[in-house]
Amino acid sequence: MYNINLNQVKEIVSSIVADHTIENVAFVGCGASKSELYPAKYFLSNASKKLRVSHFTANEFNLDTPDWLGDTTVVISASLGGSTPETVKANAVAKAAGATVISVTHASGSALTKDADYSIIHGFEANYAAKLEKMGYVMALALEILQQTDGYDKYDKMIDGFGKIFDLAEKSAQSAKKAAKQFAEEYKDAPVVYVMSSGGSTEVAYSTSICLMMEMQWINSGSFHSGEFFHGPFEIVDKNVPFVLLMNDGKTRDIDVRALTFLQRFNALTTVVDAKDYGLSSVISSDVATYFNPLLHTAVFRVYAEELSSIRQHPLSKRRYMWKLEY
Amino acid sequence: MYNINLNQVKEIVSSIVADHTIENVAFVGCGASKSELYPAKYFLSNASKKLRVSHFTANEFNLDTPDWLGDTTVVISASLGGSTPETVKANAVAKAAGATVISVTHASGSALTKDADYSIIHGFEANYAAKLEKMGYVMALALEILQQTDGYDKYDKMIDGFGKIFDLAEKSAQSAKKAAKQFAEEYKDAPVVYVMSSGGSTEVAYSTSICLMMEMQWINSGSFHSGEFFHGPFEIVDKNVPFVLLMNDGKTRDIDVRALTFLQRFNALTTVVDAKDYGLSSVISSDVATYFNPLLHTAVFRVYAEELSSIRQHPLSKRRYMWKLEY
Repeated sequence: MYNINLNQVKEIVSSIVADHTIENVAFVGCGASKSELYPAKYFLSNASKKLRVSHFTANEFNLDTPDWLGDTTVVISASLGGSTPETVKANAVAKAAGATVISVTHASGSALTKDADYSIIHGFEANYAAKLEKMGYVMALALEILQQTDGYDKYDKMIDGFGKIFDLAEKSAQSAKKAAKQFAEEYKDAPVVYVMSSGGSTEVAYSTSICLMMEMQWINSGSFHSGEFFHGPFEIVDKNVPFVLLMNDGKTRDIDVRALTFLQRFNALTTVVDAKDYGLSSVISSDVATYFNPLLHTAVFRVYAEELSSIRQHPLSKRRYMWKLEY
Repeated sequence: MYNINLNQVKEIVSSIVADHTIENVAFVGCGASKSELYPAKYFLSNASKKLRVSHFTANEFNLDTPDWLGDTTVVISASLGGSTPETVKANAVAKAAGATVISVTHASGSALTKDADYSIIHGFEANYAAKLEKMGYVMALALEILQQTDGYDKYDKMIDGFGKIFDLAEKSAQSAKKAAKQFAEEYKDAPVVYVMSSGGSTEVAYSTSICLMMEMQWINSGSFHSGEFFHGPFEIVDKNVPFVLLMNDGKTRDIDVRALTFLQRFNALTTVVDAKDYGLSSVISSDVATYFNPLLHTAVFRVYAEELSSIRQHPLSKRRYMWKLEY
């Protein structure tokens, strides 16, 4: 059974609550890492009755630092390589204000770990499940903070979910190859691709758009919440405008279903990644399954991006600007 | 001097705090109205040291209703026509949970006002300033709630700002016609237009993208925070990809400046609406000017949208789906 180290998470949070009152939890990152913080933010801001929860792109946190930042704040920051300058600076800003900093990164000893009070080093390369560790650790931190402050009546179900989601996501990704190839074939020359989702997966749609499409494939893209689709974006629907819909198997499912119904009614080019098709809520308690959608969507859509990259002969690591110049 | 009715706002909040403890403030709406709630959310979540502040697209609020919703919650909902079904339902969801509801709408007697404990009817048609009333009232509600709960040391400066922003925005919009015509000429055949901003204007960029571009002009579009630009979207920059940058005259200015510098370096098609050019921080105290950017950007970019609509002979009110069918 693949899992993250939940004991490490528990110990970090125990150590913090031993000598701090936690009133604020701020999630801080940039780009894909920012989006990978969102499922935890979504969970915690929804489920906690006492904590104040917020989510920042790092530079905004640094330049318009919230008035409440201080010693009752836990800042959870994330960066794959641990060197994102804005996020590294955010750690320093947080420390200077007296906050406790937990950093989640793949890079042991990286700049991000320097000002952090606690660091968690996550996997990445091994498989699709490993690529979810960052998101998973941040969610587990949110869960532990909730449990050790307010208490949470679905704590055991969430812990059980962590024990199941990584294997399910890996298996799902492995089984998605055929559908992913079909997507790649169909969308390889698309001038624009829209991505939408809801609930905890809202920022999976966002990172699919700004990272997988725009950054890694140089394909024009936009993203929005599937509930917002009906309040503007849907006027762009036409037979030749492609949409990716990451459907949730959880509380916001009806929102996604409504968007799908509309897309199908007008024969829009529609690619659906439905967490229900991969059995999310039959594997994980339906009381908490909604919070695990982002992990499943991220794993499965990674395969779609790989197939798109392959058919377009445009490696996911190809860049015009990043890693090539100072900006 | 154009202003909203700040006494009405004060009386509503006084009446609520007289017999409620306010712990949570939730801003709920859809599409343009959701985005018009954001400046207040941005202000309140940044400036309040005690309140828990959140922002929802209405259907998500209805289907994954937060665990904390109850009698210590004030829900502020908004809808121009007052009939947006998801937002109307959100009022009922909020009331059923014991929350206090304040609705801000242009439509007196509309469905949105039915379950609301308090309603504020805002202007719209008169001029550009009137089109800001919805956003302004919601910000003023946030300010009054802050002042009457935590207290706020910049309260007087904010009140002074309200006294100045509407005239400044109107004058700015009136003076923007020439630049707006140039934008319309340059972008009239653009296959895609990206929009970015930061701070309180982040969702002005969002609504410019999903409403003015996609909904009202059927132009492909995406939007993102200008700090996030460097973490994905900037790889799409090429000589023929158009960007609109709503530059803030406030705390997040350096983020926008960095994006501008990059766009200029690569000769990207760039349209800038800079709040500093319209004198925002020389008119409003620099301690609070940052929060008034969204009103200025909204007024000025409205002129840009009008000019784009005019040159493309595509009225801003033209729809394929909305108002034409059930969905």
